[in-house]
Amino acid sequence: MMLPKQVEIVEVGPREGFQFEGISRPEAIAFDDKLALIAALAATGVKTLQIVSFVHPKQVPQMADAERIVEALQPVSGVTYTGIYLNDVGLKRAIANPKLALVPDLVLSASETFALRNQKRTFDEDAQAARRMGALYRDLGVAVTTGNVMAAFGCNYEGPIPLSRVLERIGTLSDIAEETGGRLSTLNLADTMGWADPTLIRRTVAAVRERWPATRIGLHLHDTRGLGLANVYAALVDGIDRFECAIGGLGGCPFAGHGGAAGNVATEEVVFLCDRLGVSTGIDLTRLLDAGRLAERAVGHPLPSRLLRSGVEIGLQKAVNDSGVHLFDHGR
Amino acid sequence: MMLPKQVEIVEVGPREGFQFEGISRPEAIAFDDKLALIAALAATGVKTLQIVSFVHPKQVPQMADAERIVEALQPVSGVTYTGIYLNDVGLKRAIANPKLALVPDLVLSASETFALRNQKRTFDEDAQAARRMGALYRDLGVAVTTGNVMAAFGCNYEGPIPLSRVLERIGTLSDIAEETGGRLSTLNLADTMGWADPTLIRRTVAAVRERWPATRIGLHLHDTRGLGLANVYAALVDGIDRFECAIGGLGGCPFAGHGGAAGNVATEEVVFLCDRLGVSTGIDLTRLLDAGRLAERAVGHPLPSRLLRSGVEIGLQKAVNDSGVHLFDHGR
Repeated sequence: MMLPKQVEIVEVGPREGFQFEGISRPEAIAFDDKLALIAALAATGVKTLQIVSFVHPKQVPQMADAERIVEALQPVSGVTYTGIYLNDVGLKRAIANPKLALVPDLVLSASETFALRNQKRTFDEDAQAARRMGALYRDLGVAVTTGNVMAAFGCNYEGPIPLSRVLERIGTLSDIAEETGGRLSTLNLADTMGWADPTLIRRTVAAVRERWPATRIGLHLHDTRGLGLANVYAALVDGIDRFECAIGGLGGCPFAGHGGAAGNVATEEVVFLCDRLGVSTGIDLTRLLDAGRLAERAVGHPLPSRLLRSGVEIGLQKAVNDSGVHLFDHGR
Repeated sequence: MMLPKQVEIVEVGPREGFQFEGISRPEAIAFDDKLALIAALAATGVKTLQIVSFVHPKQVPQMADAERIVEALQPVSGVTYTGIYLNDVGLKRAIANPKLALVPDLVLSASETFALRNQKRTFDEDAQAARRMGALYRDLGVAVTTGNVMAAFGCNYEGPIPLSRVLERIGTLSDIAEETGGRLSTLNLADTMGWADPTLIRRTVAAVRERWPATRIGLHLHDTRGLGLANVYAALVDGIDRFECAIGGLGGCPFAGHGGAAGNVATEEVVFLCDRLGVSTGIDLTRLLDAGRLAERAVGHPLPSRLLRSGVEIGLQKAVNDSGVHLFDHGR
């Protein structure tokens, strides 16, 4: 038990949520609503906001407005805004926007099937793309600082992913970082498809730390199967102090019109857990819940976050329903 | 870290779910659907099913059919069926049904405001009622084995509940049990309004164990604020091996028509967590998910369980939506 004193929360809801919500309807979220949500999140105390993705507009039409979003953005002092990209074209679009911070990072997938489906790349091609990206950073005069492994805990196509393969992919990331004059000071492990569990997280964290003791580990978790917050707690107990989360649990499946399958772990639930454990996040939970309600209005349907429904403390009035019957266990 | 080898799962969905869903519409769930769900749950391998509540039909009209349910019940060998009650009238109704097992238990609330609202009793009256119940058990020739503390981790009316008060209430339960010739071999702590967090659970468990080392602790948790599964994990790590849960996360708030605020921790998510941690439950997860889908059809709206949406393993077909776009992070 070595709970961190403070954790870094990276809000990825605008990027991941806008992208996801727009899968079937690129215009699912109005441009002004996107900006309003980004502004509301920036007012919560969160330090890093991932707001756009620079991908091909044919592939992800709902992100075609990435440049417009950044252009209209009114940056808040103390908040770092980032975008993500998967290739040199995306990187060039990202660095053309001085309001965005450049995070010199590399990405690999731990599932080859996922890499083929998500980016049309074999493992070798995935590594070659990362190598090209490393060279681009070097040409820009920046050193790689960060690695990301997607599908690090399992894959809907391949099932469980062996830990040895995750370590091998991290090794490749580390090699490429060093070849291009950088090093992995931060490594984000993404549970892209919601396969992690507390034991798997602890085992993976221990193995990564043993081999790369100077690398800080961050987690990008999804709550697909209901274990999201249990996974966050297990990671906190092991001292993990960096989490990527999405307001309201944005990023869920399209059945979410019914409040359906969950996406990312909800930022407000992670912050609430940290608050309860005495772990500082620097984030104002009341403002975060306000931003969550704004996100729900923007997407036009309930989001998966439970805390968004319940609030932190339900008052007397809310605890009694219209008919005056108490909303509790009657008896237990 | 002392994960138990196996845990006892007590399914309370029929009792708590039917009760809850019927708050505004007593006929919310058809009689035959109730029986079908109980039968489906009995086929999962779960050992104990809490199926009815013997409360006054004026107060809880949706439980007016308790006797009819038990009468129509076709018990499955190896499954224990139970009902709950809050007073001597309820106890007499329960023991009139030989298909139900009698669990000689006592209940106190750790929040006086909740006791006043839920049962119209002060702390003193609550203890007097428990004392009368203990005397009734003695007259029936059975010894008290079990105690229950409601609102043991917090209360929507009172806020946090001091640990000293929880211990004091357990002390009263223990005294009454001994006065009537029994003892608390099992103590269930109920997070009736969803106030628990992992640290609070571990602290409470440690304090109870220190004072009553021979008493087995069970937990009845709600997922109201999103920490339900994190709380289960924290408890498992401390060796807790008894959990009361509800299929689908039944027992939620009336906004649940939108897949809204969560009720009890979902049985299938607890079993899934245990499976992943190598903790045996004796429950077949596939059958449990079938029962969950049945529960959703019976209540006529999505239930809060995430695993019920996602399934344990999403296959290739399901992972691609109609437009052929992958339902993942595009890029991370």
